[in-house]
Amino acid sequence: MGWEAPETFLFDPEPDIRATALELYWQTHELGIISPHGHVPPGLLANPQAQFSHPTELLIRHDHYVFRLLYSQGIALESLGVGVPEGEYDPLEAWDIFCQHFYLFDGTPTGLWLRLELTRLFGVSEKPSARNARAIYEQIQAALDTPAFTPRALFKKFKVEVLATTDAPEDDLSPHLRAQRDGYRVIPTFRPDGLLQVLRPDWKERLARLEAVTNRSIERYRDLLEALQERRQAFKKAGATATDHSAAQVRIEPLPEAEVERLFALALKGEINPEEAERLEAHALFDQARLSAEEDGLVMQLHLGVTRNHNRALYARLGGDMGADIPHAVDWTRGLQPLLNAFGDPSQGKPLEMILFTLDESTYTRELAPLAGHYPGVRLGAPWWYFDSVLGIERYLDAVSETATLHNTAGFNDDTRAFASIPARHEVWRRVVANWLSRKVHRGILELEEAHRLMRLSAHDLAAQAYRLKPTPQPS
Amino acid sequence: MGWEAPETFLFDPEPDIRATALELYWQTHELGIISPHGHVPPGLLANPQAQFSHPTELLIRHDHYVFRLLYSQGIALESLGVGVPEGEYDPLEAWDIFCQHFYLFDGTPTGLWLRLELTRLFGVSEKPSARNARAIYEQIQAALDTPAFTPRALFKKFKVEVLATTDAPEDDLSPHLRAQRDGYRVIPTFRPDGLLQVLRPDWKERLARLEAVTNRSIERYRDLLEALQERRQAFKKAGATATDHSAAQVRIEPLPEAEVERLFALALKGEINPEEAERLEAHALFDQARLSAEEDGLVMQLHLGVTRNHNRALYARLGGDMGADIPHAVDWTRGLQPLLNAFGDPSQGKPLEMILFTLDESTYTRELAPLAGHYPGVRLGAPWWYFDSVLGIERYLDAVSETATLHNTAGFNDDTRAFASIPARHEVWRRVVANWLSRKVHRGILELEEAHRLMRLSAHDLAAQAYRLKPTPQPS
Amino acid sequence: MGWEAPETFLFDPEPDIRATALELYWQTHELGIISPHGHVPPGLLANPQAQFSHPTELLIRHDHYVFRLLYSQGIALESLGVGVPEGEYDPLEAWDIFCQHFYLFDGTPTGLWLRLELTRLFGVSEKPSARNARAIYEQIQAALDTPAFTPRALFKKFKVEVLATTDAPEDDLSPHLRAQRDGYRVIPTFRPDGLLQVLRPDWKERLARLEAVTNRSIERYRDLLEALQERRQAFKKAGATATDHSAAQVRIEPLPEAEVERLFALALKGEINPEEAERLEAHALFDQARLSAEEDGLVMQLHLGVTRNHNRALYARLGGDMGADIPHAVDWTRGLQPLLNAFGDPSQGKPLEMILFTLDESTYTRELAPLAGHYPGVRLGAPWWYFDSVLGIERYLDAVSETATLHNTAGFNDDTRAFASIPARHEVWRRVVANWLSRKVHRGILELEEAHRLMRLSAHDLAAQAYRLKPTPQPS
Repeated sequence: MGWEAPETFLFDPEPDIRATALELYWQTHELGIISPHGHVPPGLLANPQAQFSHPTELLIRHDHYVFRLLYSQGIALESLGVGVPEGEYDPLEAWDIFCQHFYLFDGTPTGLWLRLELTRLFGVSEKPSARNARAIYEQIQAALDTPAFTPRALFKKFKVEVLATTDAPEDDLSPHLRAQRDGYRVIPTFRPDGLLQVLRPDWKERLARLEAVTNRSIERYRDLLEALQERRQAFKKAGATATDHSAAQVRIEPLPEAEVERLFALALKGEINPEEAERLEAHALFDQARLSAEEDGLVMQLHLGVTRNHNRALYARLGGDMGADIPHAVDWTRGLQPLLNAFGDPSQGKPLEMILFTLDESTYTRELAPLAGHYPGVRLGAPWWYFDSVLGIERYLDAVSETATLHNTAGFNDDTRAFASIPARHEVWRRVVANWLSRKVHRGILELEEAHRLMRLSAHDLAAQAYRLKPTPQPS
Repeated sequence: MGWEAPETFLFDPEPDIRATALELYWQTHELGIISPHGHVPPGLLANPQAQFSHPTELLIRHDHYVFRLLYSQGIALESLGVGVPEGEYDPLEAWDIFCQHFYLFDGTPTGLWLRLELTRLFGVSEKPSARNARAIYEQIQAALDTPAFTPRALFKKFKVEVLATTDAPEDDLSPHLRAQRDGYRVIPTFRPDGLLQVLRPDWKERLARLEAVTNRSIERYRDLLEALQERRQAFKKAGATATDHSAAQVRIEPLPEAEVERLFALALKGEINPEEAERLEAHALFDQARLSAEEDGLVMQLHLGVTRNHNRALYARLGGDMGADIPHAVDWTRGLQPLLNAFGDPSQGKPLEMILFTLDESTYTRELAPLAGHYPGVRLGAPWWYFDSVLGIERYLDAVSETATLHNTAGFNDDTRAFASIPARHEVWRRVVANWLSRKVHRGILELEEAHRLMRLSAHDLAAQAYRLKPTPQPS
Repeated sequence: MGWEAPETFLFDPEPDIRATALELYWQTHELGIISPHGHVPPGLLANPQAQFSHPTELLIRHDHYVFRLLYSQGIALESLGVGVPEGEYDPLEAWDIFCQHFYLFDGTPTGLWLRLELTRLFGVSEKPSARNARAIYEQIQAALDTPAFTPRALFKKFKVEVLATTDAPEDDLSPHLRAQRDGYRVIPTFRPDGLLQVLRPDWKERLARLEAVTNRSIERYRDLLEALQERRQAFKKAGATATDHSAAQVRIEPLPEAEVERLFALALKGEINPEEAERLEAHALFDQARLSAEEDGLVMQLHLGVTRNHNRALYARLGGDMGADIPHAVDWTRGLQPLLNAFGDPSQGKPLEMILFTLDESTYTRELAPLAGHYPGVRLGAPWWYFDSVLGIERYLDAVSETATLHNTAGFNDDTRAFASIPARHEVWRRVVANWLSRKVHRGILELEEAHRLMRLSAHDLAAQAYRLKPTPQPS
């Protein structure tokens, strides 16, 4: 028997649970994919001729899920082509290293995604190893060279209904518009972190690009806010329905205007300290929330509580996104209170719509499920990053379902840079949800028809609702 | 097949586990209910003629478990009759909204309790929905209008052995005494929060009521302490065996006397700040603990770690208990150390008996189970509020059983305002415990007879021991 | 049927899972025991004539897992012989109390170990109780009096390949050398806490012993550091491969040299305050890490986040290790960053090898698995103390396997003072791992051969790798 993923993949062995899980999963088979948050480069879909160059580029170089674990076992990132330009590493050698160490992914979410992707998409029938590395490389390469494996062809094959990318305010949105013009619904997401975190090394550079794209001079915080306001409108016109924000802390609260301008002036002079920069960011996030609540209705995603680039030597050498972002404890209850008091109760107008993502699982039952189970505008985002795994998803469902209920969640998003892994990630989510619902059916906690309703919501409809995505016809 | 709760409700489907769970659960069938902590209004049992007026009053208006989730999905609380006087809302319309949205409770603890309550107590055989809302309303109303559904009749039907209410020191205890006189063991619990939290808007009013009920003038902290001491004695005479305390922080430590009086004087003048108020509260809690340990032996319940009334706009509009109390992280290990050092070791006399309740599940294995597995006077309270659910109970049992053991817990309490839901809540607890014990039997971790012993303890005896409740004959 | 531990002990009842678990467990049957961290007194193995004196000495007096729980139920420690000299308590009476209360251990890890130890090692066939207490005492005593039950005989019987003890820098290492000379691989572990925590009551005394053993005068911090450096070399020569450190906080960062010497001088004068002592300790730990990374390659074990001797009255009366060490929350992400930035990235030379142990389970998924899944030198230590239980091990495996993978763990260590319980502890670990792997096989997450590979790693090889223990022939 070959390496494969059987029909009952990820289901409990207990026969009744397995049968119902399969029935629930089966109903999602014809549903398209809603991908409302991720990091696929929009250029891939803008150009009808775009192709993936080779297996190492497709599966290793840009996927920190993959290379992080290899690094942890002593493998140099550079040998995998990570952080070095094309041409300065050997893709075949990198691939060999990856296959020799493929056993490291046994039982991990990355291992499961790769198994699904390699078997389903490329027809690989053996687990990668030192022995078969080259044969698998050639098999994938042969596929990539055909028109059936262009990003656009895969977009249709995967039944993607909508794909949201993540974009800086200063980014060009023409790739999205070109894709849309040809019938591929690729929409941007407004992610202004790089402009709100004034201690980032590239802050000034980004500011200059924003000045160029808005044809404005940004000398005060107020100028920045207006420029962002303008770009939010441009994003919305390009189809955006959401913003996204990542910050180290949960602290979102306004400052007096004079104080904001004072801090911004310090930032421009390069004289702001970390504590001041954090307060300025907290104010700026509050302003972005206000724009969502009072002006443009963009759904606000918050991804909070991470120490970015924890490994400073590696960051200095190879830059960010090296798998060295490490979560830390946060306080959602008190950190969000000013924001929720300003925009969270319907008596103050339509409440701000927010989707909250955490990497601190202990906050689900302590803080996030109670918040989402109370405030009308609050939804819980999918388990994310280190947690989009079989057990991560199960713990998430366990933690949020009783207090917040699935109705106050935002369904699933794949959050990936790895375009070709999108169906695998949704399949793992759907299978784990199906199995989890089936367990409830067989304990008498859910009726079968209730489980069917919740299955469809989790697989598709909740994401559409949460991100205010109206259904569109698929490209044909 | 109708809507129901079968014999094997909440048990695992694995046949051996299910059979043993049923056997264990069955043994509790004849046991009465010990309800040592809750919020039923004592007046319900004081008056032989008391009745529940209508289904909306019974099931919706006063149950924040129910209306919280409806609010989270955008339903106005006022439309459910919450926070508005009888006569200013339409009970039938509120009921219709509730039934239309009943699917929101699928898989939640509230949904399970309602299923048990509606099917077992009222004979409802269909899940509520828009279609059958009025029919169900009428069916319940008809029952409520009969003598079999008075609170006193239900007290007997439910086999309640003892029901503890929660009462302020300034409250009148005659309802308890009237109920007791007629053979219904309804006892008060001493809950002085409103007098110890000097920044509450109604603090002065409560103080005045305490002055009236004790016929004392309270000008210093020492006067307050003496008045509370007197009321503790009155509570004890009325059958109380416990006190209850809720505070935002775990910080219980004494101050020098002069400092206490200085802070109290500031509080009286309305000039105390939050940090000072918190220190004064920490001292006052220490004094209450001292009275328990050295004077009256009342068991001290601590419910700590909540941001009350998180949604300030809602609080301003409708008051407290609106489902907007959100837990936050606390530090039991260091917060309780002064108290445990003063009263926790038997070498200092009989140790203070305490029951600790948390809403931060991460503290169970990190702090609370180690504390309860060491200090003789410390017991862990039942999973509470957001956690008296199938999974909440299972996580609790998993978290406390290995380090603290069930022997250092306080069994179950239903903590409810909803009198008619009491048997449902105890049934869910007992079924989940039975299933959990059965799993252990079939892994060889427990012998069957050990599981039987632990079943009876959890269902009944531990609560009686923890709250020092001597058995009494039931009313007949 | 007697009291026993069947072949399928601790396995799930589902037949497929059970069968595969048994197959996986069976493969470990012939493997020896690696015990790389524990607290067995080395003298036990130094002397060929050493014997265990009686059952109370063997099983109760020195095992805080056992007496902690009895104390929590109101039993005086002194009545169990805890903290009192031999001759000042009655071993038979202590044993009777233990057996009368043996039911308290139902379902606990201690109960499972005792069941394995009593049935397998001593042939006891009934669960201890008041009724059979004396008979069991005599049965064990009879065994202890035979040559088959000397520590050395048991060492061979248990197939211990290597046993690491925990030793202070000032300790005499000749017991280890005597054991080794006779073919028993007993190695020390360098644990300098007592010299780095300057507020300990016995600090000066330890310092004096270190001066004596190194024949140095220690007047400055630099003298202390050099003395420790010398002792690390002596430990290494005696076979040590690791150091061990316990601290209340995760804070390991260097100070300027002048500041270090200032603090050390204050410590010598007895004038240092707790905050200063903590900073000095943080610096001293950083120096120990530097020695590991740059000089001697000893693996650094960190056991952090505990409030030691929480019950001060008990501590004053009976001393430490009374079961009153209570964990508290810690911040690994930010606390370890200075250390990892100094020694964690391979670009700075071979990375420091560390094994991290936590008592705050919420840090596994939030902090520790991401750290170990990134940094090459970081491994996660086994679930420890309150967590070396069936559920503790399962939660650990769940929490670390997806993000860090088992490859970045250090396998198992028994961490025990109770020499005779070593096989029982390893058996529980191996059985729970086997069952956990089997569950994954039957959900399609692992192939059977992958599970076999991970089983062997977890049972034996990972510990050897993590602690740099080269295989040695067993004594024969």
